[in-house]
Amino acid sequence: MTDTLIRNCYALVPDERGVPTVASNQDIVIRGNRIAAIRPTGQAPEPGLDVIEARHQLAMPGLINTHSHVPMVLFRGLAEDVPIERWFNEFIWPLESNLTEEAVYWGMLLGLIEMIEGGVTTVADHYFFMDQAARAVDQAGTRAHLGWAVFASRGMGVLDETAAFVERWKGGAGGRITTCMAPHAPYTCDDGFLRASVEHARRLGVGIHIHAAEEMGQTTASLEKRGMTPIKVLEDTGILSVPTLIAHGCGLLPEDVERLARYRDHVGIAHAPKTYLKLAMGMTPIRALRKAGIEVGLATDGAVSNNTLDVLESLRLMAMMQKHEASDPEVMPIPEALDIATRGSAAVLGLSDRLGKLAPGYLADLILVDTRGAHWQPPHSLTAGLVYSARASDVQTVLVDGRVIMRDRRLLTLDKERVLAEVSSHMERLARRVPEARIQVYKP
Amino acid sequence: MTDTLIRNCYALVPDERGVPTVASNQDIVIRGNRIAAIRPTGQAPEPGLDVIEARHQLAMPGLINTHSHVPMVLFRGLAEDVPIERWFNEFIWPLESNLTEEAVYWGMLLGLIEMIEGGVTTVADHYFFMDQAARAVDQAGTRAHLGWAVFASRGMGVLDETAAFVERWKGGAGGRITTCMAPHAPYTCDDGFLRASVEHARRLGVGIHIHAAEEMGQTTASLEKRGMTPIKVLEDTGILSVPTLIAHGCGLLPEDVERLARYRDHVGIAHAPKTYLKLAMGMTPIRALRKAGIEVGLATDGAVSNNTLDVLESLRLMAMMQKHEASDPEVMPIPEALDIATRGSAAVLGLSDRLGKLAPGYLADLILVDTRGAHWQPPHSLTAGLVYSARASDVQTVLVDGRVIMRDRRLLTLDKERVLAEVSSHMERLARRVPEARIQVYKP
Repeated sequence: MTDTLIRNCYALVPDERGVPTVASNQDIVIRGNRIAAIRPTGQAPEPGLDVIEARHQLAMPGLINTHSHVPMVLFRGLAEDVPIERWFNEFIWPLESNLTEEAVYWGMLLGLIEMIEGGVTTVADHYFFMDQAARAVDQAGTRAHLGWAVFASRGMGVLDETAAFVERWKGGAGGRITTCMAPHAPYTCDDGFLRASVEHARRLGVGIHIHAAEEMGQTTASLEKRGMTPIKVLEDTGILSVPTLIAHGCGLLPEDVERLARYRDHVGIAHAPKTYLKLAMGMTPIRALRKAGIEVGLATDGAVSNNTLDVLESLRLMAMMQKHEASDPEVMPIPEALDIATRGSAAVLGLSDRLGKLAPGYLADLILVDTRGAHWQPPHSLTAGLVYSARASDVQTVLVDGRVIMRDRRLLTLDKERVLAEVSSHMERLARRVPEARIQVYKP
Repeated sequence: MTDTLIRNCYALVPDERGVPTVASNQDIVIRGNRIAAIRPTGQAPEPGLDVIEARHQLAMPGLINTHSHVPMVLFRGLAEDVPIERWFNEFIWPLESNLTEEAVYWGMLLGLIEMIEGGVTTVADHYFFMDQAARAVDQAGTRAHLGWAVFASRGMGVLDETAAFVERWKGGAGGRITTCMAPHAPYTCDDGFLRASVEHARRLGVGIHIHAAEEMGQTTASLEKRGMTPIKVLEDTGILSVPTLIAHGCGLLPEDVERLARYRDHVGIAHAPKTYLKLAMGMTPIRALRKAGIEVGLATDGAVSNNTLDVLESLRLMAMMQKHEASDPEVMPIPEALDIATRGSAAVLGLSDRLGKLAPGYLADLILVDTRGAHWQPPHSLTAGLVYSARASDVQTVLVDGRVIMRDRRLLTLDKERVLAEVSSHMERLARRVPEARIQVYKP
């Protein structure tokens, strides 16, 4: 693989105190799959490097989408303006009974294209037919943390199958794929199922990706039905004892935050604000979580709630909603928002020792964002631009694991027209709904 | 001017009940500055028409930004993460003491470029040195409703000056410019000043564009200081007796909504949700306003609070925030959001008889939005795509008054590089802050 020199860019780097800040006129040297050096522009480039001229472009760590169901792009726009019970029972779970291995493969590719074009280099995906998702990630050249979503209604046997997937793809795609167990949620998985998931995770040396306390109604229902919150269920069943990624936490009580704090070295929260707004789910208490030392990462959730996979939009919404909820515009200042978008999002995946920072030795997952658009001008503050002006379409060039996978908005690993055509050919069949054919019932 | 045929597009048109809906395979014929016909594709094009092939593109009325301070793009990113008092007193009003006629001209052009590129064809602008703003609009080829912002602290004489501006540019730029009186707000203009503004407006046959009840703190302060809400002040001083456009109304009480309802045939509210989130100002009670028959339009406000001039983003935020605030995902369904973005926004400017609808006889202000981006696919619902997936960068072609001013993202009326260079040359000087040099003091 060719080594790369990104020349004369702005670079988003942590200052001495770790605060994300922009350095001007920087060169970034990439050797193999790692960042070798970041230095002021001026030094003559070593021979043999592929040089990317990046004047007016801002280099930052590739965006990390810490919770999605990527192939749900197949159903984009089919479940609008409905409450969460109807969203699941009348739309999503009937629609998902139409899924096939092939549809998931093409849906995953479509979602990966959207994410690459929007600067997302890593996704934690929680869905079905995950061998197909892994195959798509392998081809796209991106990074992914994959878990095969399961409900207890399918019986314990499905855990063996998904554990086999975990083993099959752990360290796959040249190390770009990590895997985990993915029981759906405490309200769809009984305690025995959750405990068995933990056993598999321990045996395989992986973590767990699960939904919990998604909104306050679930917490209330759990308290009524069994006298404990969903987070307490995660603790009692041993889930919190292994590395755990929890979506979405809009139904966290103060006692849940205290409980999670005890596991903060290996438990994090995925935050997907656009879904919460569209489904009126409330909002994750990010300030309380961060104050308790619990890491929070940015996420999109699936495209049937979001309706995109745009992490820059999640970043902006997160910052604005924290201000709004606190009635305090000083809450979630720009550097904190960028910390969550970079280091924090890597941390909730347990990868902050190698991802989420532009620094020598870190994996070369990075993106170049054009700052010359009228909506960025004049460039008084590029960090403000990144949080409040940047659009997915500003992302010009994307590298993952040292490899250029999009250059000047041209995709180098995937055939977009082919993928759109394949998705289109499945479109009509996938949109059919037979409520009796749903894969699961929502009744928290 | 050449007449135009837009061929084989999707078209956002009202159905029999007035609900915005998407018709496939439509041709739109434009003659002079009006829409002549919208008809199914198939008919051979009349000779002499400029044909725009628009397959996979969605035609919709040009977006209307019902409240902005466009040249504030000059200060973009300079006032982040601060409360509204500091935002005004330490940042905006000191910064604005650096403004010159020339700076406003180039700032207006920069903002117009950003808006054209984002599909905004009309803006209601409320700022200073408005002859320069009008000159820029004339050159850009867009439509604008312009008012010269004034504070009572400048003395009654400024009203004569701004009234002269109103006369000078009323019907200017070939009818694309309308004008109005623009006293800043009840908290910066005493009653005598407001009454005098009304007198000028009556004499000139124009309306008024004013800030009021921007957030609840202003309403509380007004009640404490003078025992009435800002909206009651507008009524008492006669403002509500003329066509009035009010920004932003996050501090409206139920009694204010009742009061405004009495003037609903000529009074509307501009809604700029991104500013409210960033400055934690609360949210306009859109449901109550609409229920009372008061028109609401979309707005960006200025780019120092927003930080962009992206009306598609305002549209999305409006819909999502209404759901969030009501804790009800069925609130503000997609057709209602699109009604506000089109007909409603035209109505608050008093132009709904000629703008905001694709229909024969309406002004040919329309945009073509690409639906082939990965973030729109598959196209199960183009109205969902428009509200929840569309990005400013999806806008391909823009027509105003029958004239193509952007085609396939190429600007036809303005020299973008020149404008960026001119703005850049003013950048450093404009960013200097001397708090004592502020143009006004915020003390509602």
